[in-house]
Amino acid sequence: MTQSDSVASAEPRELARMSTDALREFRDRERARYEAIKARAIPFNLARGKPATEQVALANQLLTAVATPEQCWTEDGNDCRNYYGSPQGLIEARRLFAPMLGAPPEQVLVANNSSLALMHDAVVYALLTGARDGAAPWRDQHRPIRFLCPSPGYDRHFQICEQYGIEMIAVPLTGAGPDMDEVERLAADPAVKGMWCVPKYSNPTGETYSSETVARLARMGAAGDFRLFWDNAYAVHDLTGRSDRLDNVLDACAAAGNPDRALVFGSTSKITFAQAGLGMLATSAANMRWFVSRQSTRTIGPDKLNQLRHVLVLRDDAGISAHMEQHFVSLDVLDACAQRVVALAKGAGIEMVPAGRTFPHGRDPRDRNIRIAPSFPPADEVRAAVDALATCVLVATSERLLADRGVNA
Amino acid sequence: MTQSDSVASAEPRELARMSTDALREFRDRERARYEAIKARAIPFNLARGKPATEQVALANQLLTAVATPEQCWTEDGNDCRNYYGSPQGLIEARRLFAPMLGAPPEQVLVANNSSLALMHDAVVYALLTGARDGAAPWRDQHRPIRFLCPSPGYDRHFQICEQYGIEMIAVPLTGAGPDMDEVERLAADPAVKGMWCVPKYSNPTGETYSSETVARLARMGAAGDFRLFWDNAYAVHDLTGRSDRLDNVLDACAAAGNPDRALVFGSTSKITFAQAGLGMLATSAANMRWFVSRQSTRTIGPDKLNQLRHVLVLRDDAGISAHMEQHFVSLDVLDACAQRVVALAKGAGIEMVPAGRTFPHGRDPRDRNIRIAPSFPPADEVRAAVDALATCVLVATSERLLADRGVNA
Repeated sequence: MTQSDSVASAEPRELARMSTDALREFRDRERARYEAIKARAIPFNLARGKPATEQVALANQLLTAVATPEQCWTEDGNDCRNYYGSPQGLIEARRLFAPMLGAPPEQVLVANNSSLALMHDAVVYALLTGARDGAAPWRDQHRPIRFLCPSPGYDRHFQICEQYGIEMIAVPLTGAGPDMDEVERLAADPAVKGMWCVPKYSNPTGETYSSETVARLARMGAAGDFRLFWDNAYAVHDLTGRSDRLDNVLDACAAAGNPDRALVFGSTSKITFAQAGLGMLATSAANMRWFVSRQSTRTIGPDKLNQLRHVLVLRDDAGISAHMEQHFVSLDVLDACAQRVVALAKGAGIEMVPAGRTFPHGRDPRDRNIRIAPSFPPADEVRAAVDALATCVLVATSERLLADRGVNA
Repeated sequence: MTQSDSVASAEPRELARMSTDALREFRDRERARYEAIKARAIPFNLARGKPATEQVALANQLLTAVATPEQCWTEDGNDCRNYYGSPQGLIEARRLFAPMLGAPPEQVLVANNSSLALMHDAVVYALLTGARDGAAPWRDQHRPIRFLCPSPGYDRHFQICEQYGIEMIAVPLTGAGPDMDEVERLAADPAVKGMWCVPKYSNPTGETYSSETVARLARMGAAGDFRLFWDNAYAVHDLTGRSDRLDNVLDACAAAGNPDRALVFGSTSKITFAQAGLGMLATSAANMRWFVSRQSTRTIGPDKLNQLRHVLVLRDDAGISAHMEQHFVSLDVLDACAQRVVALAKGAGIEMVPAGRTFPHGRDPRDRNIRIAPSFPPADEVRAAVDALATCVLVATSERLLADRGVNA
């Protein structure tokens, strides 16, 4: 029996039905397995969505796409080795990503390698200068301001809030996006200025916001300078043959009379080279003017050579679809066990995202969710690590059940 | 007689000695020349420091420096096509630029293409989270806070202050840096939190801060969270055979007991490819921890492939020196003439930096300074444009002198 089999056949419910003696015996056997795994001491990283070398190699054409001086020129006759253009990026690149982002090229900005940086900068501009022309800076309106955080969510979104003292309000996910009754109730508070959304294949649960969810987010009552931070990082990541359909949030907001509500972010980090690709923003024409005016104070413009490389390699929306590889797993263990599982895994050389990181302030109220991104190592190594992780789960679960019965040794 | 000769032989002093009739005749002749130039209608851009195509071509090796998958790996065995490393950048790149910045590699950060963005971000982090751990955010201490601005200076520095409501106090330049008596007097105000410095070949006057200036900046009384924004953009731009020596401000601040006072910025935008190069920050170990902790909320890290390209092409400090080309001119015309000169030039198809842009809030109290960066076009075109500009100066000067005598037609 492999460890994976033992996980399948030993659900918490089943363990809970065991006699205390049987459970103690079970725990000791799993602990022995755990010690054996520890002794092998093969370090392993399940901490983040790091693509495999085979995945990034799919984009190796980028390395030679712009190799001669003649290739450095844009379609409008400008040299990408020199100062040129605005912070909005090359028109060629904006046209390439417009379908993926669901906005016309004039409402698309293509930047350097990090969409997270664009989200961060949008938050900073709103905090210090207001989220639209004429509005007071967020930071001067309420202290603290608040963001809605569908959870489990992306820890790096939450870290931005934490850095700038933005209060986070966790909202449960339903399988079709956040609990909209709760969201509508909370968004009525004028101190609520933003909401983090990973609307498609939501990281880490994998769910996609339904049409009703998108429509309700677009039309709900909220402050005029409330913004949806729509991190559509997995827009084109249809891995399983199943392709979830996500409504166009910019269209939905415009139809609902709230055209400036959504800021849509995209990235090639999970498409071409991780951390050496392009980040993007799409939004209303008014919001684009707002963002560009501030961004042009920050920088003369992005690295256009890398934009040109992406244009030459990906070419169009169909070219983008050819590069998709990415995988996330969200593991829910028995309540009050997640931290112990991660600690046991660490002891066995398996590096994981800290338990709770998918909740605001790093606190999972039920201490049960673990994010796994086993995409970097080759498949056979992943299997060995998942087996080891299964043992950690079984040790922690049996320990917890025994502790609940007052048995600690 | 060429126009350049006529400029040389017609200084404002000389024009001021002319009789009104002679001056009117002079003005009409220069106006006729101006109309002839306008009729030729050759557009020309003297607006910014845009390198010539021949200059950026010096760095064409960058295009093919990393052309195979094997070349994508760092010396410590990591793949630059994938997530790896911190916002501090590749150790290879930090080592390359350490001598230019005057700090050990551990105290150097290499980022994406824009040092202006690093300056902007440092200002934002200090405004919102405090300029050092434990200090209150600048924005919560005083409203407004103030920055000292040696002038004429760089308009993009001033624009950052303007965007975030930071009050700017202009300080005159002396030829050896800012007037230090004035700086010391002003820096005693605890609301003064920063100072913009272009310490070598100061843009646009070309002066370099003297040893005494650097020492006085390092030791003067100032708030504990006061910071020198040391934009050493022209650190290695020794164009004329004359090489100015600039003292190491980090060493000077450490020696004076203010080790965290200076943030040193550098860039390859005037070394390799403009806007497709690298920006850098060097500072104390404590400040580096401060910056990196905040920057890692903003981004997972910079594009490391472009860092690798620069390492392979520039190799070391000596390699950097081989790539230098840059030229700035600061033109002082008769008081109350600069705006008119720029307007006349515009009429003749010559695009220039708006008059006043080298002063805070775009207001030159004497309306006499114009920044010229005629580096982009080939040399013979530059000569034609400068001749045309000379005509504009002569028209504006004679007009002004006649106006002072009550003659307007």
